[in-house]
Amino acid sequence: MFKKLLIANRGEIAVRIIRAARELGIATVAVYSEADKEALHTILADEAICIGPSKSSDSYLNMNTVLSAAIVTGAQAIHPGFGFLSENSKFATMCEEMHIKFIGPSGLVMDKMGDKINARAEMIKANVPVIPGSKGEVTTTQEALEVADTIGYPVMLKASAGGGGKGIRKVERREDLVAAFESASQEALAAFGNGAMYIEKVIYPARHIEVQILGDHFGNIVHLGERDCSLQRNNQKVLEESPSIAIGATLRQKIGEAAVRAAKAVSYENAGTIEFLLDEKTGEFYFMEMNTRVQVEHPVTEFVTGVDIVKEQIRIAAGQPLSVSQDDICLKGHAIECRINAENPKFNFAPSPGKITELYLPSGGVGLRVDSAVYQGYTIPPYYDSMIAKIIVHGSNRFDALMKMQRALYELEIEGVVTNSEFQMDLISDARVIAGDYDTAFLMETFLPEYEQTED
Amino acid sequence: MFKKLLIANRGEIAVRIIRAARELGIATVAVYSEADKEALHTILADEAICIGPSKSSDSYLNMNTVLSAAIVTGAQAIHPGFGFLSENSKFATMCEEMHIKFIGPSGLVMDKMGDKINARAEMIKANVPVIPGSKGEVTTTQEALEVADTIGYPVMLKASAGGGGKGIRKVERREDLVAAFESASQEALAAFGNGAMYIEKVIYPARHIEVQILGDHFGNIVHLGERDCSLQRNNQKVLEESPSIAIGATLRQKIGEAAVRAAKAVSYENAGTIEFLLDEKTGEFYFMEMNTRVQVEHPVTEFVTGVDIVKEQIRIAAGQPLSVSQDDICLKGHAIECRINAENPKFNFAPSPGKITELYLPSGGVGLRVDSAVYQGYTIPPYYDSMIAKIIVHGSNRFDALMKMQRALYELEIEGVVTNSEFQMDLISDARVIAGDYDTAFLMETFLPEYEQTED
Repeated sequence: MFKKLLIANRGEIAVRIIRAARELGIATVAVYSEADKEALHTILADEAICIGPSKSSDSYLNMNTVLSAAIVTGAQAIHPGFGFLSENSKFATMCEEMHIKFIGPSGLVMDKMGDKINARAEMIKANVPVIPGSKGEVTTTQEALEVADTIGYPVMLKASAGGGGKGIRKVERREDLVAAFESASQEALAAFGNGAMYIEKVIYPARHIEVQILGDHFGNIVHLGERDCSLQRNNQKVLEESPSIAIGATLRQKIGEAAVRAAKAVSYENAGTIEFLLDEKTGEFYFMEMNTRVQVEHPVTEFVTGVDIVKEQIRIAAGQPLSVSQDDICLKGHAIECRINAENPKFNFAPSPGKITELYLPSGGVGLRVDSAVYQGYTIPPYYDSMIAKIIVHGSNRFDALMKMQRALYELEIEGVVTNSEFQMDLISDARVIAGDYDTAFLMETFLPEYEQTED
Repeated sequence: MFKKLLIANRGEIAVRIIRAARELGIATVAVYSEADKEALHTILADEAICIGPSKSSDSYLNMNTVLSAAIVTGAQAIHPGFGFLSENSKFATMCEEMHIKFIGPSGLVMDKMGDKINARAEMIKANVPVIPGSKGEVTTTQEALEVADTIGYPVMLKASAGGGGKGIRKVERREDLVAAFESASQEALAAFGNGAMYIEKVIYPARHIEVQILGDHFGNIVHLGERDCSLQRNNQKVLEESPSIAIGATLRQKIGEAAVRAAKAVSYENAGTIEFLLDEKTGEFYFMEMNTRVQVEHPVTEFVTGVDIVKEQIRIAAGQPLSVSQDDICLKGHAIECRINAENPKFNFAPSPGKITELYLPSGGVGLRVDSAVYQGYTIPPYYDSMIAKIIVHGSNRFDALMKMQRALYELEIEGVVTNSEFQMDLISDARVIAGDYDTAFLMETFLPEYEQTED
């Protein structure tokens, strides 16, 4: 096992990793920007190294500085968390070259799954269903029209190197295709230096269903069931749950097996997530993409399976076999996560950084967990993601979990900054959410418009 | 199900019950003394009623005022928590007469088990092993000598109506018996209005092993495995764990079945605990007493069994059957609880009330729970028990749980008052505790003398 681990991240995920490492008896090194001198991850780690100015491009994204911090402190491994350098294949490769273990898959595997067109091709080979669409790159408008005619409108144009919503267009009608294709391709070229596009059918209504997988160095790959992350705002997940109410035992097994096939296709090592779109009417599901890192919503899976995913990541990276086999894993009860963000839902969810003058995080009782990096008196800096806490509950069934979440949000008190906690309370109190009757469009197209009409 | 529940308690257990009730959709009424106006249970309940001055005899122990608060607010049930009125059969009966459901067994059953001589007799009838000793009351010194000669020294003299360490004497040699008997009997008469004594053999070395049981109105009784509470200071538990390292599968089943027999003997309803002394050398165990209420250490059992004991108590009282059968229950992993008290271990554990100026409670990650009633800025009043938080961890095995507890204690920060958190850290870091090599005398006779010799 590693003796010392550097955490190349901040916020609650950095704290989460420090905790896991400490429980494994591993010394921890935090890296922090100038804005994060008083951050909890900086305080809780055994050592902390300042890696630069507040802007993440100058600190948390600075590969050389992060790597130097690892070398200087004698860290044997780097856990990248999510975001920042977690899916940067170049960084993973740099770590490898410096004989520092990057806790995640190899840069090669990252690249394979990061290129969307290539990932689609890999999945088709592995007999994992993909969204009907172009076989590979689409370079001309003529080709685009042909593909769209074959699969039928509406279609989605996507940049092969895409991310963050850039180079992406939904096209409802044939007459809009050419213009959309040209502008998306130019946007992709400007953003990613690569104008290559591909086309997919729009699956709607759909659920965002993702499957957590774990793979070790010995070729063992298991899935830990699914998470339903259909409640999204601007493609950002807001509330996640496991299991999904839309999935029965047969479909669960099918989608789980598809996820394992997907991971096996690229000899995947460490924790990863296969994201699918589920057409609830037909029960068909389609590969969207793979996230080659731990995810924000991993705790819901930890609650229903009892597997500590972050510890498992560390053990896998240290060359140990998975601590569980597929037969060991069963989903018990129901877990829900609400992301608490310092943002103002009544002001278009504008970030609300600042000093937390009073704080009471819900605590205690059975099946409640709060992963957070804030404390009373802490000042949330304006430079980073607005998520400040995750409340995760585990009930004997979905209704029990919803009641627990209501209890938790009732107790939560944060003064000094505006948060989305009342918004989350409204969301989980909505009859359609309680009934589990929602899809990926529900929050944006139904709930939010209604919410914006309500008085303060 | 009840619509409204009054919680006749304070501190973390009151908060614990409020949380369970809220998650069941039940409105809650807190009662509070003048000192507890700003207490968390007062804040978190839907309603709060002041029931008198700070001294508990004038408030939390005032049966009429508590009952009036329930009547006035329309509460249909009263949860007594532990301590205060929780084992007061008169109060249970008063509730019954007012048609308010007392969440616990009937006053009759409480009386049966509260009288120690009677409880011994019931257990013998039910084929539950009791500590070798007198058959019933011992009223003369001559009788006491005869009993002691038969069972062998050392012996323990105990008041039948005893509690709180009063009317109790350990006698090592025959020549000390008469004087000890007379003084203990007089002390018992003065304290309880009843000088009746009984005699038990001293079981030493021994482990304090207790079995959690649940019984419903339909005669179903299950046990939830054991807790090892051998680490005690002045008969106060300091650290509890489940399962016990001293117990294998066969003994677990035997002691669990004995606990169920004990509960069945008195047609027990609701949650209760059968306390045993285990002679580790012989594997023999002996009934000590039954606690007819929820216990401080119930969360360790909740972690290893997944059963929410407080919710189960409420459901049972509402006439619902147990939600689990004996076959459903298996102990998974290992749980440990550390009690965090506002007290000074370097000053004979003197209470340390006062204002909490800074507070960071450990949080997040897998298998950690903090049940507490304090918050930053809260002033701990001097009138009540010094326990301010319980840290409970759940690991895949005992070592994992110990590592988690170390992590939690490392994170814990309480400023403004002195606490025993460093003492607890020292205790769980002790090689003998890590090895599980301790008995009921270890803390007082071995650990504390060593601890007191260490420098600050």
